[in-house]
Amino acid sequence: MVARWVKRVSRDSAGVDLPPLRPYAWALALLLFLPVSLVLELVSGPGLGTFATAGLGIVPLAWFMGLATEEIGKHAGPGVGGLLNATFGNATELIIALFALAGGLQDVVKASLTGSIIGNLLLVLGLSMVAGGLRHKSQSFSREASGIHTTMLLVAVIGLVMPALYVFSARTTGAVNLVVLDEMSLGIAAILFAVYVFGLLFSLRTHRDIFNPVSEKEEKPRWSVRGAVVVLLVATLLVAGASELLIGSLEAARTSLGLTDLFVGVIVVAIVGNAAEHGSAILMARRNKMDLSLAVAMTSTTQIALFVAPVLVFASLFTAQVMTLDFEVFELVSVALSTALLASIISDGRSNWYEGLLLVMVYAMIAVAFFVHP
Amino acid sequence: MVARWVKRVSRDSAGVDLPPLRPYAWALALLLFLPVSLVLELVSGPGLGTFATAGLGIVPLAWFMGLATEEIGKHAGPGVGGLLNATFGNATELIIALFALAGGLQDVVKASLTGSIIGNLLLVLGLSMVAGGLRHKSQSFSREASGIHTTMLLVAVIGLVMPALYVFSARTTGAVNLVVLDEMSLGIAAILFAVYVFGLLFSLRTHRDIFNPVSEKEEKPRWSVRGAVVVLLVATLLVAGASELLIGSLEAARTSLGLTDLFVGVIVVAIVGNAAEHGSAILMARRNKMDLSLAVAMTSTTQIALFVAPVLVFASLFTAQVMTLDFEVFELVSVALSTALLASIISDGRSNWYEGLLLVMVYAMIAVAFFVHP
Amino acid sequence: MVARWVKRVSRDSAGVDLPPLRPYAWALALLLFLPVSLVLELVSGPGLGTFATAGLGIVPLAWFMGLATEEIGKHAGPGVGGLLNATFGNATELIIALFALAGGLQDVVKASLTGSIIGNLLLVLGLSMVAGGLRHKSQSFSREASGIHTTMLLVAVIGLVMPALYVFSARTTGAVNLVVLDEMSLGIAAILFAVYVFGLLFSLRTHRDIFNPVSEKEEKPRWSVRGAVVVLLVATLLVAGASELLIGSLEAARTSLGLTDLFVGVIVVAIVGNAAEHGSAILMARRNKMDLSLAVAMTSTTQIALFVAPVLVFASLFTAQVMTLDFEVFELVSVALSTALLASIISDGRSNWYEGLLLVMVYAMIAVAFFVHP
Repeated sequence: MVARWVKRVSRDSAGVDLPPLRPYAWALALLLFLPVSLVLELVSGPGLGTFATAGLGIVPLAWFMGLATEEIGKHAGPGVGGLLNATFGNATELIIALFALAGGLQDVVKASLTGSIIGNLLLVLGLSMVAGGLRHKSQSFSREASGIHTTMLLVAVIGLVMPALYVFSARTTGAVNLVVLDEMSLGIAAILFAVYVFGLLFSLRTHRDIFNPVSEKEEKPRWSVRGAVVVLLVATLLVAGASELLIGSLEAARTSLGLTDLFVGVIVVAIVGNAAEHGSAILMARRNKMDLSLAVAMTSTTQIALFVAPVLVFASLFTAQVMTLDFEVFELVSVALSTALLASIISDGRSNWYEGLLLVMVYAMIAVAFFVHP
Repeated sequence: MVARWVKRVSRDSAGVDLPPLRPYAWALALLLFLPVSLVLELVSGPGLGTFATAGLGIVPLAWFMGLATEEIGKHAGPGVGGLLNATFGNATELIIALFALAGGLQDVVKASLTGSIIGNLLLVLGLSMVAGGLRHKSQSFSREASGIHTTMLLVAVIGLVMPALYVFSARTTGAVNLVVLDEMSLGIAAILFAVYVFGLLFSLRTHRDIFNPVSEKEEKPRWSVRGAVVVLLVATLLVAGASELLIGSLEAARTSLGLTDLFVGVIVVAIVGNAAEHGSAILMARRNKMDLSLAVAMTSTTQIALFVAPVLVFASLFTAQVMTLDFEVFELVSVALSTALLASIISDGRSNWYEGLLLVMVYAMIAVAFFVHP
Repeated sequence: MVARWVKRVSRDSAGVDLPPLRPYAWALALLLFLPVSLVLELVSGPGLGTFATAGLGIVPLAWFMGLATEEIGKHAGPGVGGLLNATFGNATELIIALFALAGGLQDVVKASLTGSIIGNLLLVLGLSMVAGGLRHKSQSFSREASGIHTTMLLVAVIGLVMPALYVFSARTTGAVNLVVLDEMSLGIAAILFAVYVFGLLFSLRTHRDIFNPVSEKEEKPRWSVRGAVVVLLVATLLVAGASELLIGSLEAARTSLGLTDLFVGVIVVAIVGNAAEHGSAILMARRNKMDLSLAVAMTSTTQIALFVAPVLVFASLFTAQVMTLDFEVFELVSVALSTALLASIISDGRSNWYEGLLLVMVYAMIAVAFFVHP
């Protein structure tokens, strides 16, 4: 499959300034770690080996997803490119979460939602701004597009705060009514879902130009739209497989390295679960395409909060127990303060390495707090 | 009275492009519901009938208040227009609250304050931006004027948070000292009142130009200032009467429709209690006068927080018990997050239908939370 | 020493438009209160006398520090001027705090940190904007520089919230693990310190131009850099001595005036402890150099949060008990809301007297709350 796809890419890019295969050589070489990982898993080799090879194999996949996103962005603008990247990137997370939900692991699913939001906001965006800022002194992007993403995120924060406030109030006056909490979560989920759907109408239809400005110096696409989407799709499927190997060998690797459960969980969620966003956003930032870089990271975040979370609540109706939207104070405060920090950083439509570093530092502080969280 | 006023309006507008009575016909027709409502009340007719007719009668009154505000705005600028509209609009609320206070209904009064703030911020502004945004792709307004309103609101939030923090701290260490809470509330009320008075000095005297910019293409006023103020005054009095009928028949209507107490309370507070602001702000937004639209909604909000609330605290000194400014965590978090959302939306000096929808959606989420609140 | 320094200043400024001594006459006269204060202390005179004369003696010192900061700003830009002023201003506070830490007064030290942050943010900045705004209708400053300071402050807030969240979570589920709290505080302190160090690299090296823009109409410096730094250093030492006298006579003065402990504490921390920042920031605002004024106040604030606080945590390793970074909810909410207010006020890159007044009013409200805090 990979071979066929390489041929297609070569054919698509024939005649443009990119030589057919050479620039992909390192990535194609790294891809070989994937079959190695699979073999190690099948022969029940050392867990750490499976883990390391699967992790290395994800790197080129993330890079290919970044390239495909860039090509789609050239055809259809950063808004559409970011949306496609986020959708493919989050599809894996949604599928894994649905399985976990069916298995009754509601707490794990809820923790992965906030972990993913914080990871995208702080780590993906922060590393992108650092990576871009080390090459370019100051990078600019659309204040309007990023401002609307921040506002959407704030709406999600408000929605997620409401059930927690109910639980807080109910606890001080008496007992929490679980039926009420279920109904409230369903109501909030329905509203968040509506916010998402209207957001698509807004960003793809009525105000498409905000998110997909006609850039002055149009870059010539190297791949066709179809080619880029196929790359995105194939890479997503391979990432899903690699994630499977990675998570399967996680416990063994964790023990070998002597790390704690929660710490590895948060790191894995933020880095592996958002591999597509990481690869694309950082690659775009280095190429000084901050609009596309931010679109990837922020669309992914709002999609988790406004689409994945509600869909999981609805899906939980078919399980024994409704997945309620009451999160811990610790998680909510972290998400709310991360949103405020992001709003402060993007408000001037410019970024630099230090602002990126601040985001990463705050991620580190939240990681320290998660590390000791009871 | 109405007839005389119609004549005056006709005379005032003689010779300008607005034909004397035709454009007001629908509104004058709807006004007929008011006497119907009064009669139904007097003959002890069905409560739902009184409720519905009074509600229909308020619609044209709100529209007339909007027209009057627009005319005052043409004469004196959006800042002054918004201030007058808000003052008349809130006068009713203040009077009702004073009566409720005298009757010992402190909790109801405090709930109506936060309800009114949230209603103005989210519902009035949200519906205005939706109404305006459906006609105009993007609407712009003064960032400086709206920014100062947001800052004033944030000051009010900080003031209202302090007593709650005291109660929270006192509860964890021992008992709440009610004398201290009274003194603290009076101190905060005095400071908020000073913020309001200096704010008038600022917006009407030293920096009048921020709030009342000389627009390039001055519109010719259709009504005289005196005529517009009289319309505003008369409409306010009629709204006060209609509100009386509406609230008197609320219980019966509520039972007929099978709605809960709190839910109706919040809706009524937000829609009927702010009828003037609703009518004016939405009308102005549709005519693409966003500065006036925002001035109405935001001046009303800051006036409630910085003028009405302190005055009620001072007035409560003449009752058996001081009205303290300690609100519930749920209310404070809702007001604080609404303020943050507003700040995020207006920060770029532009609005569109989706930003308005987000405000309305957040109102819906808070309504869901109020709905189940113990 | 003062005489020699006056000669040096006279020599340095020879030949420029400032006449040698006349403009400093009032300040030099006020300086005479310092020896009077010292004598009163040595002869065990009335405490109120020592207190008042020491207080009066600090005024000209603050003014000299302001002048020196201005001169350094002319040579090296507002960023460097503000940094030097803040460093000298906070050096005293750090030394006093280290002695208090050695004496086991952790709670006092922690309270003085938040007191100093709130004092700088609200009182110093507020009075500067009022003082400047009464002379100049609207004052402008670099949005980019002040925005980065706000973001840094927000990062500090997030860091200080994390330990409190841990304590909150741990209390609801069981007991707080003090070893974990120590480790967490050390981890957060290390990250905040790194944020500070990278911030220096950012503001003095890679993005020096943001904080020290080449102004179009360069003002000719009156003092040499060396002269200005010497003035700053000498004035700082004298302020340290005067603070010693002031704090020594505080108890006697407090009793004479019938004030409460905490109230005087907060006022003294905010006004005396930040004398240098007060003097410089207000002086610069009156001369319409808002970039320098904000640089002084904001650099001082971020330095307290990102440098002084971590250093104190590290220093506490050499005492019997680690100074943990868990603050009270009341303090954290005050700092967080003050940061939000500041962000709202500076977001447009302009200030006026009313915005300054709002900051001072919020300081007053927080003072009211501190006044009654259990």
